[in-house]
Amino acid sequence: MRQYVVHEVIRRTLITNPDQLVVSGNTRLTYAQLYERVLRLANSLRELGIGAGTMVGVLDVNTHRFFELHYALSMLGATLHTINFRLSPEQMVYSMVHAADEWLFVSDTFMGAVKPLTAKFPNWVVMSDDSDYPLPDVARAHRYEDLVSAGDARELSTADKVQDTDIFSIFYTTGTTGKPKGIRYRHKKILLGALQLFHHLALHQTGARIDSRDVFMPLVPFFHIHGWGMAFFPAYIGAKLVLAGAAPPDVQAKLIRQEGVTALNMVPTQLHMLLEQPDFSNVKVLTGGSPLTSGLAKAADSRGVKFSLIYGGSDQLATAISVVPEDVAPDTPEALEWLRVGMRPLPMVEVEIRDKTGKRVPHDGQTVGTVWVRSPWLPEGYYKEPELTAEAYIDGWFRSGDLGVFYPNGGLYVADRERDAVKSGGEWIPTGMLEALLSEHPAVGIVAVIARPDERWGERPVAVVKPSGDVSADELREFLQLKVADGTIASYWIPDAFEFVDDIPLTSAGKINKVALRAQFAK
Amino acid sequence: MRQYVVHEVIRRTLITNPDQLVVSGNTRLTYAQLYERVLRLANSLRELGIGAGTMVGVLDVNTHRFFELHYALSMLGATLHTINFRLSPEQMVYSMVHAADEWLFVSDTFMGAVKPLTAKFPNWVVMSDDSDYPLPDVARAHRYEDLVSAGDARELSTADKVQDTDIFSIFYTTGTTGKPKGIRYRHKKILLGALQLFHHLALHQTGARIDSRDVFMPLVPFFHIHGWGMAFFPAYIGAKLVLAGAAPPDVQAKLIRQEGVTALNMVPTQLHMLLEQPDFSNVKVLTGGSPLTSGLAKAADSRGVKFSLIYGGSDQLATAISVVPEDVAPDTPEALEWLRVGMRPLPMVEVEIRDKTGKRVPHDGQTVGTVWVRSPWLPEGYYKEPELTAEAYIDGWFRSGDLGVFYPNGGLYVADRERDAVKSGGEWIPTGMLEALLSEHPAVGIVAVIARPDERWGERPVAVVKPSGDVSADELREFLQLKVADGTIASYWIPDAFEFVDDIPLTSAGKINKVALRAQFAK
Repeated sequence: MRQYVVHEVIRRTLITNPDQLVVSGNTRLTYAQLYERVLRLANSLRELGIGAGTMVGVLDVNTHRFFELHYALSMLGATLHTINFRLSPEQMVYSMVHAADEWLFVSDTFMGAVKPLTAKFPNWVVMSDDSDYPLPDVARAHRYEDLVSAGDARELSTADKVQDTDIFSIFYTTGTTGKPKGIRYRHKKILLGALQLFHHLALHQTGARIDSRDVFMPLVPFFHIHGWGMAFFPAYIGAKLVLAGAAPPDVQAKLIRQEGVTALNMVPTQLHMLLEQPDFSNVKVLTGGSPLTSGLAKAADSRGVKFSLIYGGSDQLATAISVVPEDVAPDTPEALEWLRVGMRPLPMVEVEIRDKTGKRVPHDGQTVGTVWVRSPWLPEGYYKEPELTAEAYIDGWFRSGDLGVFYPNGGLYVADRERDAVKSGGEWIPTGMLEALLSEHPAVGIVAVIARPDERWGERPVAVVKPSGDVSADELREFLQLKVADGTIASYWIPDAFEFVDDIPLTSAGKINKVALRAQFAK
Repeated sequence: MRQYVVHEVIRRTLITNPDQLVVSGNTRLTYAQLYERVLRLANSLRELGIGAGTMVGVLDVNTHRFFELHYALSMLGATLHTINFRLSPEQMVYSMVHAADEWLFVSDTFMGAVKPLTAKFPNWVVMSDDSDYPLPDVARAHRYEDLVSAGDARELSTADKVQDTDIFSIFYTTGTTGKPKGIRYRHKKILLGALQLFHHLALHQTGARIDSRDVFMPLVPFFHIHGWGMAFFPAYIGAKLVLAGAAPPDVQAKLIRQEGVTALNMVPTQLHMLLEQPDFSNVKVLTGGSPLTSGLAKAADSRGVKFSLIYGGSDQLATAISVVPEDVAPDTPEALEWLRVGMRPLPMVEVEIRDKTGKRVPHDGQTVGTVWVRSPWLPEGYYKEPELTAEAYIDGWFRSGDLGVFYPNGGLYVADRERDAVKSGGEWIPTGMLEALLSEHPAVGIVAVIARPDERWGERPVAVVKPSGDVSADELREFLQLKVADGTIASYWIPDAFEFVDDIPLTSAGKINKVALRAQFAK
């Protein structure tokens, strides 16, 4: 019987789309050529002793080699540790030691920065277009392209032994506090979760409705849930895949135009940067990871950039996606607003918003609670962290730590992380919702709401604003009063203070750095 | 953890589409109302002792009650035997005894015909809109609607105990010869197979590309692989579902117009009958089960009826679907031809065409061989038939008994059943391919090619033609000579004889009755 294992995804391209292209830098490979490289690589790796359960760390941007490694390691039954290069150097080493990486595959993009690792890790494979790229001074070191050249192109006998319940990969989350947490993904779960996301995109009226004629470019790095599943989906339907490597936004925009890219994924910060390129237009974008402001949504819309918002994460995988409800006409301002804020659980996913006693809150578009998720692809917990696992994975459910509300029509709005929300007089004030409302003001550029300790209320909100025009604290206060008057928010949500700044600090992942803001303004 | 079990499919509608409709005869239910009826029914059935593993036979056309039973029996962990009413009465009883049906759910449509069964089966539930419908004289008999009224609307504790590897249903294939064969479907496999079919329809350029705003009507009966999966898919995405019960084609056409139906499935015979209705137009049709003639394809196209062809069956589930290849422009005559004959394996499905020695044949669009299939949803074999199972299910593959060819671009054409093909001089002549070619002649109405025993060649083809205009055997012979000249077929494919008839006999399933034709013309 065939199973949902990763390397089975790509085999169909040999029949249906052998000449379709994977483009990566100056490399242009057909799926047929790429599959042969995967077989050669896998046979060479097998000679090196890489097999069932071997932990293999990969440190690379989105290239064809990282893409190939997904399929080669799957055939061997090895575990792919997609090393999170957005972690601090110290945290990155922690994750590699915690996962117990036996082999490291490192691209030349990262070789300069990771030399200190040579003392800790003895087995290296260097990935570079340069066939003379110097090897590190370790016990065993190889060049990736030499392994591809040396390997046989025959099918691997190990490939049919891999079970869909076997571990395929491991990933360590950033975590703004504490040490990184590892999450292991089984073949079946990582595939079903990723594929459901794209299936749902194809089934619904969304801004980013896709089909098999699209040309895909993941701008989410492969390390992060395999580029939100884009390491699998184009191969699964035999579509053209374009990989941008370490290209900056202007080169990305050029590549999108040159290769006819039509469907991308990225976090909002990347979307913001691409919209600064004059020739970025008329594509479909799947985005998420932080709220989309109405300013960014309108800027995208005015350039013909259609989008959908995703909700999920490395510890729950894909959960919800923004769609235009059936009773709303597509391509209207109302539809755009739904795509920006109104998500629906994916088919087979159950989402509940619960209060602190564990009771489900009403679907009234007002009552904020914690998002709980249940799905067929929910991971089992944090690797070698039974206590952290027990706190978040409860009775088949995942307690997300996010705050959300349900609208009467089933639309889900995820407002905030609990740790970022303001708890005032025992009630949650979701800062993400406040930020979204404030960003509707024409003179607000970027806005972040943080909690300031308060003797009477416990915490009170403070808005840190980077203005895009002339605006005062009184004006913003009045602006929010209108939202109180029309019933959108309660009056106690209005921030006690508005701080105006020249710039808002971002984290390495491109999100607003609230830790830094709290240090400065929440005293 | 949530699993791929049938009743999980419908629960999401409570959040996303509680007011969406299921229409069945004079009954109009929202998903919220229907879900409550399912709970009430399931709780009543539990009181009757129906639980994990109970075999429940259901004999009904496509109604809301049959639809509800899918979900209620799933919650109980019972097994749904979808009784094939196209079997002969003798074969039907054989299937019910072989499956060991403990309870029978029979709609009033069938009550007249099945009274002889009362001696064999003691436990009955009668399904009717008539609250006084007479109960059969058996040990235990109930009315379905009484059970719904009497039951509690609470969630079932058994529902979370059902595993995705449990058996959900059993079905007995017609089989033109021999006794019916039972195939059991596990929850996960029946769902993944059915959903993949619709996902693929949504992802590709096909004539029948669907989305969540479609209104669905299964004209394939629920007994046949759950209406080719349409007992699940509309609920899975929260779409409107319209059930036609026992309505004849003119009433079906009226219902399609009245309820705004946009997406249907049916066998080609049903399509033919609907196209005879003046007001049947502008819908999407998924069809299959027998080849689509170019005449029928053109008739559909001229009415704005877009279609895709499916390949699969009860013993392999969904395998392939016709799509417009990426290098062919949609809505062209070439695209139409691909939709009629050129299928692609579904993602995750592997198809091989093998010769009699088991070797894969070249993908040259010419070499005919047997279709072998491997997929994650392949059933394990025939229920309590180890020998028949061993003949067809081999090393994780299913040997389909169908003849097919692969085109160089990955297009799959399934030409014929092996048992219908003509074996001339040791070579297969696929009659389906010959029929398709002959049906392109403007004066050919319906055509069937059968094998006539031949001393020299073993078998030789004979074409039985129901003409739609003036045509002679010589003309048809010359017509096929052109196809020999352009390399489409070999010269020995040309039938030895052309027999002209006033009508072509059909089986109860609406396929051409080749057994009857052979009895008349193959002597």
